[in-house]
Amino acid sequence: MSFTYNRTIHFQDTDAAGVIYFANVLSMCHEAYEESLGIAGINLKTFFSNSSTAIPIVHTSADFFAPMFCGDKLSINLIPQQLSETKFEIVYEIVADSSSQQILAKAMTRHVCINPITRTRTPFPDAIVQWLGRV
Amino acid sequence: MSFTYNRTIHFQDTDAAGVIYFANVLSMCHEAYEESLGIAGINLKTFFSNSSTAIPIVHTSADFFAPMFCGDKLSINLIPQQLSETKFEIVYEIVADSSSQQILAKAMTRHVCINPITRTRTPFPDAIVQWLGRV
Amino acid sequence: MSFTYNRTIHFQDTDAAGVIYFANVLSMCHEAYEESLGIAGINLKTFFSNSSTAIPIVHTSADFFAPMFCGDKLSINLIPQQLSETKFEIVYEIVADSSSQQILAKAMTRHVCINPITRTRTPFPDAIVQWLGRV
Amino acid sequence: MSFTYNRTIHFQDTDAAGVIYFANVLSMCHEAYEESLGIAGINLKTFFSNSSTAIPIVHTSADFFAPMFCGDKLSINLIPQQLSETKFEIVYEIVADSSSQQILAKAMTRHVCINPITRTRTPFPDAIVQWLGRV
Repeated sequence: MSFTYNRTIHFQDTDAAGVIYFANVLSMCHEAYEESLGIAGINLKTFFSNSSTAIPIVHTSADFFAPMFCGDKLSINLIPQQLSETKFEIVYEIVADSSSQQILAKAMTRHVCINPITRTRTPFPDAIVQWLGRV
Repeated sequence: MSFTYNRTIHFQDTDAAGVIYFANVLSMCHEAYEESLGIAGINLKTFFSNSSTAIPIVHTSADFFAPMFCGDKLSINLIPQQLSETKFEIVYEIVADSSSQQILAKAMTRHVCINPITRTRTPFPDAIVQWLGRV
Repeated sequence: MSFTYNRTIHFQDTDAAGVIYFANVLSMCHEAYEESLGIAGINLKTFFSNSSTAIPIVHTSADFFAPMFCGDKLSINLIPQQLSETKFEIVYEIVADSSSQQILAKAMTRHVCINPITRTRTPFPDAIVQWLGRV
Repeated sequence: MSFTYNRTIHFQDTDAAGVIYFANVLSMCHEAYEESLGIAGINLKTFFSNSSTAIPIVHTSADFFAPMFCGDKLSINLIPQQLSETKFEIVYEIVADSSSQQILAKAMTRHVCINPITRTRTPFPDAIVQWLGRV
């Protein structure tokens, strides 16, 4: 299954080369993740303030296939996959709304669930397990 | 007249104090400006690459009345006003969707139209004059 | 008195118009503030996590006089002024190292000291009073 | 050979989880790359505006081993390696100045040299070949 997030490239996303700054592609992907969590009923303010569990990103990668310009309308397809009781991965595919055949960029983030105090692994909270099963 | 832009606070917008980083409020306002231009049919890629005319921001200000948290759903009301043949101002009012009575922040940007080579004042292009008349 | 912070314009600071994105000028000014606090011996991690007191920005403004490009080497002069027991202002002047006569931009931030739980005004901690007296 | 860039974590780099936002680690690495180019005498304004050749990032990845907090003083070791006439890679290792034994994060960026109009591969300009040989 998957989730699609619509996003327009903002002026701030771009750099002096006239296209989106490479690291901002990953930020857009994280927005898609947040939107998906929010729609699943997860309170983002609480979730990201690391009260009882934290789910930091431990690895990320991205491939850039074509330039993206200010005003471009994009769809980001998000495909999460649980890897273990304490680890999941999300793959993101970015396509232009005007030509959804061509993938403009592809990215991934790998997340682990930890106790934010001891920083040792801990199982995902129920809400995340449900989100992983549903998206 | 005015235009309303809907925006959710992203994780990246926040800082270690747990609320939106002050300068990112201005970036959100600029997004509202871009969205409004885009809806008016202005090509953002061309517009912001300063081919024949540039419309840089020469002054900005913002007042912050209440904290904004990750996941908060906001409306940004944008009210542009032409000041002269070469100058306009935009006022932005940010309210929470959950309680639109309370203004969370207020901002403004002042823009002047210049020739990007000589950096001297030049009248707004027709598309901007039309946008100013319509929004 | 004042404090000077040296900063090079990064590629990420710029936008598709080829110059620094307006809101990033304010972020650079905040960096100068952080550097000044750090040199005064204030622990930034604790300070900005709002444990007992928070000092949010309630107002900001900026004037932009000349474009700044990727690689430009700048000096930001920071001049703080205490306004009351619970309020201070900082004025920032940005000049190019190559021609320090010309001010490229000028900005200000106004800060108030609050209890982060009740969000009511509270006097500045001693370390801030000392910083205000020294810078 | 390698190059070391010193960087303090800014408040803006952090997010509501209290640590550096993951994509900002890559931005810090890009700053190290820019600094290294600048020291080699390359004009960053011209270089990044893609006049005759562009050297976009086509792939990036990062591993995050430990949290980084506002005010943390870091060293980023940059190790470039030429892969072909039109491709190089940079590996970045981030360590804390207080404990340089422990690697906090590791990242890489892969760059290809293209003609920005035709977007076909073209050999690196001499200045980049020299930079690759020297760093």
